[in-house]
Amino acid sequence: MRFLPEEQSAALVDEELAFAAVRDALVAAAGDQAEVFPAVAGHGSSAGNRFTVKSGASAGLAGVKVGSYWPGNVGVPRHNSIVLLFDQELGRIGAVVEAGVVNAYRTAAADAVAASVLARDDAATLTVFGTGHQALYECAAVARVRPISTIHVVARSPQRGERFVASLAGRGLTGQVTAAEPACRAADIIVTATTATAPLFDAGWVRPGTHVASMGSDALGKQELPPRLLAAARLFCDLPSQSVRIGELQHVADLVADGTLRLTAIGDVLTGRAPGRAGDGDITVFDSSGIALQDLFVADALLRAAGSP
Amino acid sequence: MRFLPEEQSAALVDEELAFAAVRDALVAAAGDQAEVFPAVAGHGSSAGNRFTVKSGASAGLAGVKVGSYWPGNVGVPRHNSIVLLFDQELGRIGAVVEAGVVNAYRTAAADAVAASVLARDDAATLTVFGTGHQALYECAAVARVRPISTIHVVARSPQRGERFVASLAGRGLTGQVTAAEPACRAADIIVTATTATAPLFDAGWVRPGTHVASMGSDALGKQELPPRLLAAARLFCDLPSQSVRIGELQHVADLVADGTLRLTAIGDVLTGRAPGRAGDGDITVFDSSGIALQDLFVADALLRAAGSP
Repeated sequence: MRFLPEEQSAALVDEELAFAAVRDALVAAAGDQAEVFPAVAGHGSSAGNRFTVKSGASAGLAGVKVGSYWPGNVGVPRHNSIVLLFDQELGRIGAVVEAGVVNAYRTAAADAVAASVLARDDAATLTVFGTGHQALYECAAVARVRPISTIHVVARSPQRGERFVASLAGRGLTGQVTAAEPACRAADIIVTATTATAPLFDAGWVRPGTHVASMGSDALGKQELPPRLLAAARLFCDLPSQSVRIGELQHVADLVADGTLRLTAIGDVLTGRAPGRAGDGDITVFDSSGIALQDLFVADALLRAAGSP
Repeated sequence: MRFLPEEQSAALVDEELAFAAVRDALVAAAGDQAEVFPAVAGHGSSAGNRFTVKSGASAGLAGVKVGSYWPGNVGVPRHNSIVLLFDQELGRIGAVVEAGVVNAYRTAAADAVAASVLARDDAATLTVFGTGHQALYECAAVARVRPISTIHVVARSPQRGERFVASLAGRGLTGQVTAAEPACRAADIIVTATTATAPLFDAGWVRPGTHVASMGSDALGKQELPPRLLAAARLFCDLPSQSVRIGELQHVADLVADGTLRLTAIGDVLTGRAPGRAGDGDITVFDSSGIALQDLFVADALLRAAGSP
């Protein structure tokens, strides 16, 4: 069995690798040879320490990802991930990849892939809701695919906001703390990376042509976007069946089910099977709930980058 | 991260280690600090290659087991298992244990633990349905806890039966191929280790005082025992909630739900919280559907047996 430890996977991963692998994963997810199995929510001996198990298979890869969140961790990461890939010749797990840092790249890459086909080419102003670890990776990944010159940071506290702006500067990105309404009104791209359970802004603040990505909604009860925005936008996601169950689209699942709203897998846009943005005035929404195929494809790419065992 | 490869775990495991660890797991499963999370059924890139993901947590352990079955494998095992244990201080997977051979011991150990408290002390005649890999481990494990002198082997073909008898002899056990009815009528203990989806024998063939263990029923639609036997017996299992869903008790789940049949977690018998066999005339049934805690406890015991990393 090959084992890629955290230090090695963290050193090998970058936005380019994650983007290419996640793009392939999203294309695979929209194909008919891929399947994502039900996600499991578990916990440690202390019920406050939580983990999820996601698994899936594509035409070429099959495996399992265990992601954990230990909220009380101090001095060590609270989020950790590990990915298991089957050796399908032997029928056993052939590789284990620790993917704590990798996971942040993998999640951000989905939003970057979506932005690369849904955001206007000239999108220069990015607004981010959330000042956590993941939000930073989101900004860096999106800035790689569009000419972002300004990042508006909407923070729960000025202190958090300023710390986040400093972190952006550390990555060569220019940000400023801005209130939600002006930040939305100025945005070409809005990314939400929060743990919210209610809409973060008013649908009326979003101007025509904006691309909106919801990254935080990945469980029952989570919500970041106003339903009225969803009703007015062109809707895309990683995996429709999961998006309407645990993603942002859970809040309009009935409207998707009865055909009032149309939800498109981003993989179908990437392959040209479905249209993406139709004009500069469209509002587009991408709901990223996170699928195991992303993990499998990124882990596989890392193993190839690491070279022969 | 510690890694215990297949060769090492296979060399370290034996019936004694598996028995002690699985006994602890079954005790934990019946306590109020343990939880088993929903099992997932997945598949490889080829849908015929299947895997399951089971996870759980006890007061001291938390983790995930991936078991796989590649039916077309030739020359390499068709069944494989791997167990991940959380390092709960760090909140990440701290150990990975390959457990292909271990899994056979772990599964057989549950039936041995149950037989050790449910079978009559003088049980000397064992009848086994099934001639597969797992059936051999079942015979060896049960023979370790009761003075088994004869094993009746019920086989789908005489050839399979004779091969199995030879395998038993290789382990110092005396077996003979016998038809289902006389094999049941002679049995003190009956173990079913098949992939059956219909009862394997008639309830009337089972004499008073017999202990019956169903190992094969671990998924929707599987069935090994006649429902009339369940109605006449004292019923035990590893985990009641799972037993009535995917175990042998799925076929009488309504009778368990309405209180007509009483189903007891074997862990409650092991700790003395519930009675086991009440008299020499009782028929007892143990339904083993298999729970992640068994895997976690066995993996933990193997890591301790392997010594410091």
